[in-house]
Amino acid sequence: MLTFYYAPHTCSLATHIALIDAGAAYRTIRLSFAREQQRKPDYLAVNPKARVPSLVTEQGVLTETPALLAYVAQRFPLAQLAPLDDPFAFARVQEFNSYLCSTAHVAHAHRMRGYRWADEPSAIEAMQRKVPESVSACYELIEEKMLTAPWVMGETYTICDPYLFTMAQWLEADGVDPSRFPKVIDHRRRMSERPEVRRAISQELT
Amino acid sequence: MLTFYYAPHTCSLATHIALIDAGAAYRTIRLSFAREQQRKPDYLAVNPKARVPSLVTEQGVLTETPALLAYVAQRFPLAQLAPLDDPFAFARVQEFNSYLCSTAHVAHAHRMRGYRWADEPSAIEAMQRKVPESVSACYELIEEKMLTAPWVMGETYTICDPYLFTMAQWLEADGVDPSRFPKVIDHRRRMSERPEVRRAISQELT
Repeated sequence: MLTFYYAPHTCSLATHIALIDAGAAYRTIRLSFAREQQRKPDYLAVNPKARVPSLVTEQGVLTETPALLAYVAQRFPLAQLAPLDDPFAFARVQEFNSYLCSTAHVAHAHRMRGYRWADEPSAIEAMQRKVPESVSACYELIEEKMLTAPWVMGETYTICDPYLFTMAQWLEADGVDPSRFPKVIDHRRRMSERPEVRRAISQELT
Repeated sequence: MLTFYYAPHTCSLATHIALIDAGAAYRTIRLSFAREQQRKPDYLAVNPKARVPSLVTEQGVLTETPALLAYVAQRFPLAQLAPLDDPFAFARVQEFNSYLCSTAHVAHAHRMRGYRWADEPSAIEAMQRKVPESVSACYELIEEKMLTAPWVMGETYTICDPYLFTMAQWLEADGVDPSRFPKVIDHRRRMSERPEVRRAISQELT
Protein backbone atom coordinates (compact mmCIF):
# COMPACT_ATOMS: atom_id res chain seq x y z
CA MET A 1 0.00 0.00 0.00
CA LEU A 2 1.31 3.42 -0.97
CA THR A 3 1.09 6.35 1.44
CA PHE A 4 0.72 9.75 -0.15
CA TYR A 5 1.49 12.96 1.73
CA TYR A 6 -0.12 16.06 0.26
CA ALA A 7 -1.26 19.56 1.12
CA PRO A 8 -4.38 21.13 -0.37
CA HIS A 9 -3.92 23.75 -3.10
CA THR A 10 -0.36 22.65 -3.89
CA CYS A 11 1.29 20.80 -6.74
CA SER A 12 0.71 17.51 -4.91
CA LEU A 13 -2.72 17.40 -6.57
CA ALA A 14 -1.06 16.32 -9.84
CA THR A 15 0.32 13.11 -8.36
CA HIS A 16 -2.92 12.52 -6.47
CA ILE A 17 -4.87 12.58 -9.73
CA ALA A 18 -2.33 10.30 -11.39
CA LEU A 19 -2.65 7.77 -8.55
CA ILE A 20 -6.40 7.67 -9.15
CA ASP A 21 -5.91 7.52 -12.93
CA ALA A 22 -3.62 4.53 -12.35
CA GLY A 23 -6.08 2.69 -10.14
CA ALA A 24 -3.44 2.58 -7.39
CA ALA A 25 -4.20 1.46 -3.85
CA TYR A 26 -3.05 4.25 -1.56
CA ARG A 27 -3.86 6.07 1.63
CA THR A 28 -3.44 9.80 2.08
CA ILE A 29 -1.99 11.94 4.84
CA ARG A 30 -2.87 15.61 4.70
CA LEU A 31 -0.41 18.28 5.83
CA SER A 32 -1.50 21.75 6.83
CA PHE A 33 0.90 24.34 5.49
CA ALA A 34 -0.94 26.94 7.59
CA ARG A 35 0.14 25.01 10.68
CA GLU A 36 3.58 24.39 9.11
CA GLN A 37 3.20 20.64 9.51
CA GLN A 38 5.67 20.16 6.68
CA ARG A 39 8.42 21.44 8.99
CA LYS A 40 7.61 19.14 11.92
CA PRO A 41 10.20 16.49 12.81
CA ASP A 42 7.94 13.56 11.96
CA TYR A 43 7.44 14.83 8.43
CA LEU A 44 11.07 15.87 7.98
CA ALA A 45 11.93 12.23 8.70
CA VAL A 46 9.84 11.37 5.63
CA ASN A 47 10.94 14.28 3.45
CA PRO A 48 13.79 16.47 4.72
CA LYS A 49 12.99 19.07 2.06
CA ALA A 50 9.83 20.05 3.97
CA ARG A 51 7.84 20.00 0.75
CA VAL A 52 5.00 18.02 -0.73
CA PRO A 53 4.28 15.63 -2.33
CA SER A 54 5.92 12.56 -0.79
CA LEU A 55 5.04 9.01 -1.70
CA VAL A 56 6.01 6.23 0.69
CA THR A 57 6.48 3.02 -1.26
CA GLU A 58 7.49 -0.47 -0.17
CA GLN A 59 11.03 0.39 -1.29
CA GLY A 60 11.33 3.84 0.24
CA VAL A 61 10.16 7.43 -0.08
CA LEU A 62 9.95 9.28 -3.37
CA THR A 63 9.52 13.04 -3.87
CA GLU A 64 9.44 15.62 -6.69
CA THR A 65 6.38 15.77 -8.89
CA PRO A 66 7.96 14.85 -12.26
CA ALA A 67 9.65 11.83 -10.67
CA LEU A 68 6.44 10.74 -8.96
CA LEU A 69 4.35 11.11 -12.08
CA ALA A 70 6.77 9.00 -14.11
CA TYR A 71 6.91 6.47 -11.27
CA VAL A 72 3.14 6.11 -11.23
CA ALA A 73 3.13 5.65 -15.01
CA GLN A 74 5.88 3.02 -14.87
CA ARG A 75 4.56 1.17 -11.85
CA PHE A 76 1.05 0.92 -13.26
CA PRO A 77 1.76 0.40 -16.96
CA LEU A 78 -1.72 -0.95 -17.74
CA ALA A 79 -3.10 2.54 -17.10
CA GLN A 80 -1.04 3.79 -20.08
CA LEU A 81 -0.26 7.16 -18.53
CA ALA A 82 2.97 7.68 -20.48
CA PRO A 83 4.61 6.35 -23.67
CA LEU A 84 6.90 3.99 -21.79
CA ASP A 85 8.33 2.16 -24.79
CA ASP A 86 9.34 5.18 -26.89
CA PRO A 87 12.34 7.13 -25.53
CA PHE A 88 11.59 10.21 -27.64
CA ALA A 89 7.90 10.35 -26.74
CA PHE A 90 8.71 9.69 -23.07
CA ALA A 91 11.30 12.48 -23.19
CA ARG A 92 8.67 14.88 -24.52
CA VAL A 93 6.48 14.04 -21.52
CA GLN A 94 9.41 14.62 -19.21
CA GLU A 95 10.35 17.83 -21.01
CA PHE A 96 6.90 19.26 -20.44
CA ASN A 97 6.79 18.25 -16.79
CA SER A 98 10.32 19.52 -16.25
CA TYR A 99 9.32 22.90 -17.68
CA LEU A 100 6.39 23.07 -15.29
CA CYS A 101 8.50 22.28 -12.22
CA SER A 102 11.59 24.32 -13.03
CA THR A 103 10.09 27.37 -14.73
CA ALA A 104 6.30 27.72 -14.47
CA HIS A 105 6.00 26.61 -10.83
CA VAL A 106 9.05 28.71 -9.93
CA ALA A 107 7.52 31.82 -11.51
CA HIS A 108 4.33 31.19 -9.51
CA ALA A 109 6.24 30.56 -6.28
CA HIS A 110 7.55 34.12 -6.25
CA ARG A 111 4.09 35.28 -5.21
CA MET A 112 3.87 33.32 -1.95
CA ARG A 113 7.41 32.06 -1.31
CA GLY A 114 9.62 35.02 -2.13
CA TYR A 115 11.36 34.59 1.25
CA ARG A 116 13.21 31.67 -0.30
CA TRP A 117 15.20 34.03 -2.51
CA ALA A 118 15.41 37.37 -0.65
CA ASP A 119 15.10 38.68 2.89
CA GLU A 120 14.02 42.28 2.41
CA PRO A 121 10.24 42.85 2.38
CA SER A 122 10.61 45.38 -0.44
CA ALA A 123 12.33 42.75 -2.60
CA ILE A 124 9.65 40.19 -1.81
CA GLU A 125 7.01 42.72 -2.84
CA ALA A 126 8.91 43.43 -6.05
CA MET A 127 8.83 39.70 -6.83
CA GLN A 128 5.09 39.62 -6.24
CA ARG A 129 4.55 42.49 -8.67
CA LYS A 130 6.37 40.58 -11.41
CA VAL A 131 4.37 37.34 -11.03
CA PRO A 132 1.55 38.21 -13.46
CA GLU A 133 4.14 38.93 -16.16
CA SER A 134 6.47 36.01 -15.51
CA VAL A 135 3.68 33.45 -15.13
CA SER A 136 1.94 34.80 -18.25
CA ALA A 137 5.18 34.38 -20.20
CA CYS A 138 5.21 30.70 -19.23
CA TYR A 139 1.61 30.23 -20.33
CA GLU A 140 2.30 31.99 -23.63
CA LEU A 141 4.84 29.29 -24.39
CA ILE A 142 2.54 26.54 -23.15
CA GLU A 143 -0.42 27.88 -25.16
CA GLU A 144 1.45 28.55 -28.38
CA LYS A 145 4.28 26.02 -28.46
CA MET A 146 3.52 23.09 -26.20
CA LEU A 147 -0.15 22.31 -25.68
CA THR A 148 -1.86 20.24 -28.34
CA ALA A 149 -5.41 18.87 -28.21
CA PRO A 150 -7.31 17.29 -26.76
CA TRP A 151 -4.49 16.49 -24.31
CA VAL A 152 -1.08 18.02 -23.72
CA MET A 153 0.64 15.34 -25.79
CA GLY A 154 -2.12 15.08 -28.40
CA GLU A 155 -4.62 12.27 -28.72
CA THR A 156 -3.45 10.41 -25.65
CA TYR A 157 -3.95 11.47 -22.04
CA THR A 158 -0.66 11.35 -20.10
CA ILE A 159 0.88 12.37 -16.78
CA CYS A 160 1.35 15.84 -18.29
CA ASP A 161 -2.39 16.51 -18.07
CA PRO A 162 -2.92 16.38 -14.30
CA TYR A 163 0.23 18.45 -13.82
CA LEU A 164 -0.86 21.23 -16.18
CA PHE A 165 -4.35 21.14 -14.69
CA THR A 166 -2.91 21.52 -11.19
CA MET A 167 -0.74 24.50 -12.12
CA ALA A 168 -3.57 26.12 -14.08
CA GLN A 169 -5.59 26.27 -10.84
CA TRP A 170 -3.39 29.18 -9.82
CA LEU A 171 -3.71 31.44 -12.87
CA GLU A 172 -6.27 33.89 -11.55
CA ALA A 173 -4.62 34.20 -8.13
CA ASP A 174 -1.34 34.89 -9.91
CA GLY A 175 -2.94 37.85 -11.65
CA VAL A 176 -2.95 36.24 -15.08
CA ASP A 177 -5.77 37.03 -17.48
CA PRO A 178 -7.12 33.58 -18.37
CA SER A 179 -8.80 34.83 -21.54
CA ARG A 180 -5.33 35.13 -23.08
CA PHE A 181 -4.93 31.36 -22.90
CA PRO A 182 -8.05 29.73 -24.33
CA LYS A 183 -6.44 26.34 -24.96
CA VAL A 184 -5.14 26.14 -21.39
CA ILE A 185 -8.54 27.14 -20.02
CA ASP A 186 -10.37 24.65 -22.24
CA HIS A 187 -7.98 21.93 -21.06
CA ARG A 188 -8.59 22.96 -17.43
CA ARG A 189 -12.35 22.80 -17.92
CA ARG A 190 -12.25 19.37 -19.55
CA MET A 191 -9.91 18.05 -16.86
CA SER A 192 -12.20 19.39 -14.13
CA GLU A 193 -15.02 17.23 -15.54
CA ARG A 194 -13.08 13.98 -15.27
CA PRO A 195 -14.31 11.76 -12.44
CA GLU A 196 -10.73 11.02 -11.36
CA VAL A 197 -10.00 14.72 -10.97
CA ARG A 198 -13.21 15.35 -9.08
CA ARG A 199 -12.40 12.48 -6.75
CA ALA A 200 -8.89 13.75 -6.03
CA ILE A 201 -10.11 17.28 -5.31
CA SER A 202 -12.96 15.99 -3.21
CA GLN A 203 -10.59 13.83 -1.15
CA GLU A 204 -8.23 16.75 -0.60
CA LEU A 205 -10.80 19.33 0.39
CA THR A 206 -13.23 17.33 2.51
CA MET B 1 23.21 12.19 -36.03
CA LEU B 2 22.20 14.25 -33.02
CA THR B 3 22.81 17.99 -32.91
CA PHE B 4 23.48 19.45 -29.49
CA TYR B 5 23.12 23.17 -28.77
CA TYR B 6 24.99 24.34 -25.70
CA ALA B 7 26.51 27.40 -24.09
CA PRO B 8 29.73 27.27 -22.06
CA HIS B 9 29.43 27.47 -18.26
CA THR B 10 25.75 26.51 -18.25
CA CYS B 11 23.81 23.41 -17.24
CA SER B 12 24.12 22.09 -20.80
CA LEU B 13 27.46 20.57 -19.76
CA ALA B 14 25.55 17.81 -17.94
CA THR B 15 23.91 16.51 -21.11
CA HIS B 16 27.14 17.00 -23.05
CA ILE B 17 28.97 14.69 -20.64
CA ALA B 18 26.13 12.15 -20.80
CA LEU B 19 26.30 12.10 -24.61
CA ILE B 20 29.99 11.24 -24.37
CA ASP B 21 29.33 8.70 -21.61
CA ALA B 22 26.77 7.08 -23.90
CA GLY B 23 29.11 6.91 -26.89
CA ALA B 24 26.59 8.91 -28.91
CA ALA B 25 27.37 10.32 -32.34
CA TYR B 26 26.60 14.03 -32.21
CA ARG B 27 27.73 17.40 -33.44
CA THR B 28 27.71 20.53 -31.31
CA ILE B 29 26.61 24.09 -31.92
CA ARG B 30 27.85 26.64 -29.43
CA LEU B 31 25.73 29.63 -28.45
CA SER B 32 27.22 32.77 -26.95
CA PHE B 33 25.05 34.07 -24.14
CA ALA B 34 27.22 37.21 -24.07
CA ARG B 35 26.06 37.91 -27.63
CA GLU B 36 22.52 36.77 -26.74
CA GLN B 37 22.53 34.20 -29.52
CA GLN B 38 19.91 32.23 -27.61
CA ARG B 39 17.40 34.99 -28.39
CA LYS B 40 18.08 35.12 -32.15
CA PRO B 41 15.25 33.99 -34.45
CA ASP B 42 17.16 31.02 -35.84
CA TYR B 43 17.67 29.58 -32.36
CA LEU B 44 14.15 30.45 -31.20
CA ALA B 45 12.94 28.29 -34.09
CA VAL B 46 14.80 25.41 -32.43
CA ASN B 47 13.93 26.25 -28.83
CA PRO B 48 11.37 29.02 -28.23
CA LYS B 49 12.33 29.13 -24.55
CA ALA B 50 15.66 30.80 -25.47
CA ARG B 51 17.52 28.45 -23.16
CA VAL B 52 20.06 25.68 -23.46
CA PRO B 53 20.46 22.77 -23.86
CA SER B 54 18.58 21.66 -26.95
CA LEU B 55 19.07 18.31 -28.65
CA VAL B 56 17.89 17.91 -32.23
CA THR B 57 17.01 14.28 -32.85
CA GLU B 58 15.69 12.51 -35.93
CA GLN B 59 12.21 12.78 -34.38
CA GLY B 60 12.33 16.39 -33.23
CA VAL B 61 13.87 18.75 -30.71
CA LEU B 62 14.13 17.94 -27.01
CA THR B 63 14.93 20.37 -24.19
CA GLU B 64 15.16 20.43 -20.37
CA THR B 65 18.15 18.78 -18.74
CA PRO B 66 16.34 16.05 -16.74
CA ALA B 67 14.41 15.00 -19.87
CA LEU B 68 17.55 14.99 -22.00
CA LEU B 69 19.55 13.00 -19.47
CA ALA B 70 16.84 10.34 -19.25
CA TYR B 71 16.56 10.33 -23.05
CA VAL B 72 20.27 9.70 -23.46
CA ALA B 73 20.09 6.87 -20.91
CA GLN B 74 17.08 5.29 -22.64
CA ARG B 75 18.31 5.75 -26.19
CA PHE B 76 21.74 4.28 -25.43
CA PRO B 77 20.84 1.52 -22.95
CA LEU B 78 24.11 -0.35 -23.39
CA ALA B 79 25.87 2.53 -21.63
CA GLN B 80 23.85 1.71 -18.48
CA LEU B 81 23.48 5.33 -17.40
CA ALA B 82 20.23 4.79 -15.46
CA PRO B 83 18.36 1.84 -13.87
CA LEU B 84 15.91 1.56 -16.75
CA ASP B 85 14.18 -1.64 -15.63
CA ASP B 86 13.40 -0.65 -12.03
CA PRO B 87 10.68 2.01 -11.66
CA PHE B 88 11.66 2.84 -8.08
CA ALA B 89 15.38 3.16 -8.82
CA PHE B 90 14.64 5.15 -11.97
CA ALA B 91 12.35 7.42 -9.94
CA ARG B 92 15.17 8.07 -7.47
CA VAL B 93 17.37 9.18 -10.36
CA GLN B 94 14.60 11.44 -11.62
CA GLU B 95 13.93 12.76 -8.11
CA PHE B 96 17.54 13.84 -7.73
CA ASN B 97 17.68 15.48 -11.15
CA SER B 98 14.33 17.13 -10.58
CA TYR B 99 15.62 18.62 -7.31
CA LEU B 100 18.64 20.01 -9.12
CA CYS B 101 16.58 21.66 -11.87
CA SER B 102 13.68 22.96 -9.80
CA THR B 103 15.43 23.99 -6.56
CA ALA B 104 19.24 24.02 -6.69
CA HIS B 105 19.54 25.55 -10.17
CA VAL B 106 16.79 28.03 -9.35
CA ALA B 107 18.58 29.16 -6.17
CA HIS B 108 21.75 29.68 -8.22
CA ALA B 109 19.91 31.52 -10.98
CA HIS B 110 18.98 34.32 -8.60
CA ARG B 111 22.60 35.52 -8.78
CA MET B 112 22.73 36.19 -12.52
CA ARG B 113 19.11 36.04 -13.70
CA GLY B 114 17.19 37.93 -11.04
CA TYR B 115 15.55 39.99 -13.79
CA ARG B 116 13.34 36.99 -14.47
CA TRP B 117 11.51 37.50 -11.18
CA ALA B 118 11.72 41.24 -10.38
CA ASP B 119 12.31 44.51 -12.19
CA GLU B 120 13.75 46.79 -9.49
CA PRO B 121 17.56 46.81 -9.25
CA SER B 122 17.34 46.87 -5.44
CA ALA B 123 15.28 43.67 -5.48
CA ILE B 124 17.70 42.00 -7.87
CA GLU B 125 20.55 42.93 -5.53
CA ALA B 126 18.59 41.54 -2.58
CA MET B 127 18.26 38.25 -4.45
CA GLN B 128 22.00 38.19 -5.10
CA ARG B 129 22.74 38.68 -1.41
CA LYS B 130 20.63 35.65 -0.52
CA VAL B 131 22.28 33.26 -3.02
CA PRO B 132 25.09 32.02 -0.73
CA GLU B 133 22.50 31.04 1.88
CA SER B 134 19.89 29.54 -0.44
CA VAL B 135 22.42 27.59 -2.53
CA SER B 136 24.15 26.37 0.64
CA ALA B 137 20.83 25.11 1.96
CA CYS B 138 20.45 23.00 -1.19
CA TYR B 139 23.94 21.56 -0.81
CA GLU B 140 23.32 20.77 2.85
CA LEU B 141 20.48 18.51 1.75
CA ILE B 142 22.53 17.04 -1.09
CA GLU B 143 25.54 16.41 1.20
CA GLU B 144 23.61 14.99 4.14
CA LYS B 145 20.53 13.34 2.64
CA MET B 146 21.08 12.55 -1.02
CA LEU B 147 24.66 11.95 -2.06
CA THR B 148 26.04 8.48 -1.50
CA ALA B 149 29.43 7.17 -2.63
CA PRO B 150 31.22 6.75 -4.85
CA TRP B 151 28.43 8.06 -7.09
CA VAL B 152 25.22 9.94 -6.40
CA MET B 153 23.14 6.75 -6.53
CA GLY B 154 25.76 4.55 -4.83
CA GLU B 155 27.96 2.00 -6.53
CA THR B 156 26.71 2.74 -10.03
CA TYR B 157 27.45 5.84 -12.07
CA THR B 158 24.25 7.37 -13.48
CA ILE B 159 22.95 10.48 -15.25
CA CYS B 160 22.79 12.13 -11.81
CA ASP B 161 26.58 12.38 -11.68
CA PRO B 162 27.24 14.71 -14.62
CA TYR B 163 24.35 16.89 -13.51
CA LEU B 164 25.61 17.32 -9.95
CA PHE B 165 29.14 17.86 -11.27
CA THR B 166 27.88 20.60 -13.59
CA MET B 167 26.00 22.43 -10.85
CA ALA B 168 28.90 22.08 -8.42
CA GLN B 169 31.06 24.10 -10.83
CA TRP B 170 29.21 27.16 -9.62
CA LEU B 171 29.63 26.81 -5.83
CA GLU B 172 32.49 29.25 -5.32
CA ALA B 173 31.02 31.90 -7.62
CA ASP B 174 27.75 31.58 -5.70
CA GLY B 175 29.60 32.48 -2.50
CA VAL B 176 29.29 29.02 -0.98
CA ASP B 177 32.09 27.73 1.24
CA PRO B 178 33.03 24.42 -0.42
CA SER B 179 34.72 23.11 2.72
CA ARG B 180 31.24 22.67 4.22
CA PHE B 181 30.44 20.03 1.61
CA PRO B 182 33.34 17.55 1.49
CA LYS B 183 31.36 14.77 -0.20
CA VAL B 184 30.19 17.10 -2.97
CA ILE B 185 33.72 18.40 -3.48
CA ASP B 186 35.19 14.90 -3.51
CA HIS B 187 32.57 13.89 -6.09
CA ARG B 188 33.43 16.95 -8.16
CA ARG B 189 37.14 16.14 -8.07
CA ARG B 190 36.62 12.52 -9.08
CA MET B 191 34.26 13.55 -11.87
CA SER B 192 36.79 16.11 -13.14
CA GLU B 193 39.31 13.29 -13.60
CA ARG B 194 37.05 11.22 -15.87
CA PRO B 195 38.16 11.31 -19.52
CA GLU B 196 34.55 11.84 -20.68
CA VAL B 197 34.23 14.92 -18.50
CA ARG B 198 37.57 16.32 -19.63
CA ARG B 199 36.56 15.78 -23.23
CA ALA B 200 33.21 17.58 -22.80
CA ILE B 201 34.83 20.56 -21.08
CA SER B 202 37.61 20.69 -23.62
CA GLN B 203 35.11 20.66 -26.51
CA GLU B 204 33.08 23.46 -24.90
CA LEU B 205 35.97 25.77 -24.05
CA THR B 206 38.27 25.41 -27.06
